[in-house]
Amino acid sequence: MEKKTLLTDCPDSKGLIAQITNICHKHQLNIIKNNEFVDHQHGRFFMRTEIEGYFNDQTLLADLDFSLPKGSHRALISAQKKRIVILVTKEAHCLGDILMKSTYGGLDVEIAAVIGNYNTLEELVTKFNIPYHTVSHEGLNREEHEKKVLEAISPYAPDYVILAKYMRILTPEFVKVYQNKLINIHHSFLPAFIGAKPYQQAFDRGVKIIGATAHFVNNDLDEGPIITQDVTHIDHSYTADDLVKAGRDVEKSVLSRALQQVLDDKIFVYANRTVVFQ
Amino acid sequence: MEKKTLLTDCPDSKGLIAQITNICHKHQLNIIKNNEFVDHQHGRFFMRTEIEGYFNDQTLLADLDFSLPKGSHRALISAQKKRIVILVTKEAHCLGDILMKSTYGGLDVEIAAVIGNYNTLEELVTKFNIPYHTVSHEGLNREEHEKKVLEAISPYAPDYVILAKYMRILTPEFVKVYQNKLINIHHSFLPAFIGAKPYQQAFDRGVKIIGATAHFVNNDLDEGPIITQDVTHIDHSYTADDLVKAGRDVEKSVLSRALQQVLDDKIFVYANRTVVFQ
Amino acid sequence: MEKKTLLTDCPDSKGLIAQITNICHKHQLNIIKNNEFVDHQHGRFFMRTEIEGYFNDQTLLADLDFSLPKGSHRALISAQKKRIVILVTKEAHCLGDILMKSTYGGLDVEIAAVIGNYNTLEELVTKFNIPYHTVSHEGLNREEHEKKVLEAISPYAPDYVILAKYMRILTPEFVKVYQNKLINIHHSFLPAFIGAKPYQQAFDRGVKIIGATAHFVNNDLDEGPIITQDVTHIDHSYTADDLVKAGRDVEKSVLSRALQQVLDDKIFVYANRTVVFQ
Amino acid sequence: MEKKTLLTDCPDSKGLIAQITNICHKHQLNIIKNNEFVDHQHGRFFMRTEIEGYFNDQTLLADLDFSLPKGSHRALISAQKKRIVILVTKEAHCLGDILMKSTYGGLDVEIAAVIGNYNTLEELVTKFNIPYHTVSHEGLNREEHEKKVLEAISPYAPDYVILAKYMRILTPEFVKVYQNKLINIHHSFLPAFIGAKPYQQAFDRGVKIIGATAHFVNNDLDEGPIITQDVTHIDHSYTADDLVKAGRDVEKSVLSRALQQVLDDKIFVYANRTVVFQ
Repeated sequence: MEKKTLLTDCPDSKGLIAQITNICHKHQLNIIKNNEFVDHQHGRFFMRTEIEGYFNDQTLLADLDFSLPKGSHRALISAQKKRIVILVTKEAHCLGDILMKSTYGGLDVEIAAVIGNYNTLEELVTKFNIPYHTVSHEGLNREEHEKKVLEAISPYAPDYVILAKYMRILTPEFVKVYQNKLINIHHSFLPAFIGAKPYQQAFDRGVKIIGATAHFVNNDLDEGPIITQDVTHIDHSYTADDLVKAGRDVEKSVLSRALQQVLDDKIFVYANRTVVFQ
Repeated sequence: MEKKTLLTDCPDSKGLIAQITNICHKHQLNIIKNNEFVDHQHGRFFMRTEIEGYFNDQTLLADLDFSLPKGSHRALISAQKKRIVILVTKEAHCLGDILMKSTYGGLDVEIAAVIGNYNTLEELVTKFNIPYHTVSHEGLNREEHEKKVLEAISPYAPDYVILAKYMRILTPEFVKVYQNKLINIHHSFLPAFIGAKPYQQAFDRGVKIIGATAHFVNNDLDEGPIITQDVTHIDHSYTADDLVKAGRDVEKSVLSRALQQVLDDKIFVYANRTVVFQ
Repeated sequence: MEKKTLLTDCPDSKGLIAQITNICHKHQLNIIKNNEFVDHQHGRFFMRTEIEGYFNDQTLLADLDFSLPKGSHRALISAQKKRIVILVTKEAHCLGDILMKSTYGGLDVEIAAVIGNYNTLEELVTKFNIPYHTVSHEGLNREEHEKKVLEAISPYAPDYVILAKYMRILTPEFVKVYQNKLINIHHSFLPAFIGAKPYQQAFDRGVKIIGATAHFVNNDLDEGPIITQDVTHIDHSYTADDLVKAGRDVEKSVLSRALQQVLDDKIFVYANRTVVFQ
Repeated sequence: MEKKTLLTDCPDSKGLIAQITNICHKHQLNIIKNNEFVDHQHGRFFMRTEIEGYFNDQTLLADLDFSLPKGSHRALISAQKKRIVILVTKEAHCLGDILMKSTYGGLDVEIAAVIGNYNTLEELVTKFNIPYHTVSHEGLNREEHEKKVLEAISPYAPDYVILAKYMRILTPEFVKVYQNKLINIHHSFLPAFIGAKPYQQAFDRGVKIIGATAHFVNNDLDEGPIITQDVTHIDHSYTADDLVKAGRDVEKSVLSRALQQVLDDKIFVYANRTVVFQ
């Protein structure tokens, strides 16, 4: 017996749940958990099904293909551990949380490698017996540096690339290579404080709450589909530095929660939004 | 076209989602929204289905009855406004919030009447043109008083009875009359501070968070199935009175949220627990 | 014996707490509660002192004046109930919460009058025996309408004017009349979604949290000093209408909390920021 | 110039703030930050003062001693890094968070050693070049084991001993040695679910929120003064194992926050309660 997750999204029409669950039933697969959502604005149906049984992937997908409306996507994902590459700059808190959880419980993921544009975090990463590559941006233009980063990532063939406080802007060319596989933690409650130095911006504005946002990266800076967000309360006594420090705990927990949802195949991306099943 | 909600719970077995959605499909009913949950510990399946179409209730229920395993419950509920009776003592905040929301938007419910063991809140209730009955407990024993309260409620035939800070303990006899229809707001984060004066207890213990719990009432005081809970942070500077005041906002928002879920038929009660679909 | 609150803000220098508390002591006033804060960026000192005793306001203020550095502000505020005027348009939730709390406990304030640019909420307000004035904007330009609103407010000589979902933009002239006395609830987590239709903006952006901001109003729309903010979590299943509904509970609790802090004289406004003592 | 923190608690009386700040002023010490609180129920005054200048500790304390009422405590604490010993069993999440923050920023503390009753976490701790001692309880009675643990702690002369998921109950004798220096993270929202298996208890009760509590340890299990608490929302779909996992993030953030407050000398313990200045 095996467990897999079936992700279906297609134009909405009558009887979709019955059609899909019937096909599962016909294949003698047991449904462990099921979630659906209809985006009525876009007329689109989303369904996530955890199934258990003896799979014949090809005939199952063919049956679904025959049954579902045109314009449908189906993915049948094995419940095997996913592989990620993490990009970092100098800050340790998000990286450290993922290292801890992948090693000691909390995130069931294989960290294939960590790549930094500085060597600051090499010592931390090697403690966990994970390869660290320093790909310095010094003396290189953006395209040259990204080419080297892509070359460093590529051999690991990661399912996802995690930007764990990677402080460089990516070109559309880079993003295209890992479409819907690039996850960033932004150190603000988007869309407030887009761009650089969000904590200084937050301080200057005198806000009473700061937050963090985990999102997929697309071409526009800080504009990709949001996965999850959270906030923490602050007051007038916080300096800009205090905000940075308070923000760290939110950032790491938000990124870690988003990563969990990604690893569990709980997310659909559609129309620059996410459907995140709990 | 009509909208109804189908609630099904039964012993878990293979193919239940397919069976139920097939029957809906056969009846040419469109599924707007669907939620399922399997309690693996108790081997029980729960499904809530919002359906749209032209209903023949009897044949639909008969078809389901024929298809579903023994020990199943089905309820097909029309999307019409529900009727509640509210029981109060002297505190206005929970009552006031429900009155405001039912009149000016936020809760789609008919408040048939408010019954208090004091007349303190009569003036507030009559502002909203809703009948208020004072059923004083003075000079009566518990059974005599409850009999009078039941007589006051009965003509309104409410779908639910809401204890909005009703400060009297109910007998099992009373509870039995409105089994799974009695909703209470308890002024603590249950199961902490069961019983009387929870805010004083919280103060004495020096807690840093206080909370409120909305739950169905069963025979044991404060032991019924929990619907929803929330908390608010406090610190050493709060007196016991400050706790009461801070608690009020949590109490009213928790009760109001629970009531919304009840009115939307989103709750199953099973094994002294609730399944609450979002 | 009387209770008063002394608010002092002045350029920071050594020994300020000793100077001020010495003067209180010399006047045989007992300090019930004291809070200080130094804004090191602006070199400014803020202190809030709750005092009890027999006051000679003039000599006390003169002593402070003599002792404190140049550029200091002092306010000695009696603990008497404050008077507010509330401006509304059509939405009842924030207004209703303030009406309930001022009448039945939770906010110790006198609502002198409510003024709306529609008569929608007149019925609600008159339930509470409070004067309601409809000042329609129809057929008037902004200046003409504001003049009429100012004329309606003026006789009540309010300590504060509360914009409880008043959906019209105010001119700098209006704002100047009630400098630091105008409090608005903005239906977003500022500075995200400045301007109109924030819930539609939030929906379009696919955020996972929505919020509300209570702030003083200054010349620039939505740019005034923030008093308090809060948020609530949402998910993909919320329509733009659901966001509006979910936002209402946050809006009303944020405005009510800000109003409480204002009434308790806990807020200093300085450099487009607030110092809010707890 | 040096920075120190003065902690004063004494029976409440008139003019205490003036007296203390005058003495600081007389010693030409500058007050950076000041907090006071009066517990009116117990008639006790608490004040925390961050001071800067050239200290003569003996004369300063003598002056305070002369000025303050009988029954007063004063502590003048240097702003040097504090030393802790951490006790663990098998779970890594709380320990890992403290290791990460003390090494890479977030907690300014020296971890002198980690002591476990299993060797499970030795590998993690040695990654960070910190001594790890396994003091197995096997074959020993409680007193014998505790004696060995005390012997292992003692050479490090720690300012605080942190129980980071140390799953053994301590005897009053052990607690007495580190009176007000023992900090525990309890995996529930105390006083709910006192004792063993709180997550199973929480699951059985069907709660909708779980929490964690950091507290000083005294003689009675789980009854010591609470430092800080937090919660996270859960729903019916969480198994007891899911609760454990969800609880981990709350536990580690609550313990880390409490530790920060302890290291910053922001806490007074009095009458089985804490005063925690922000």
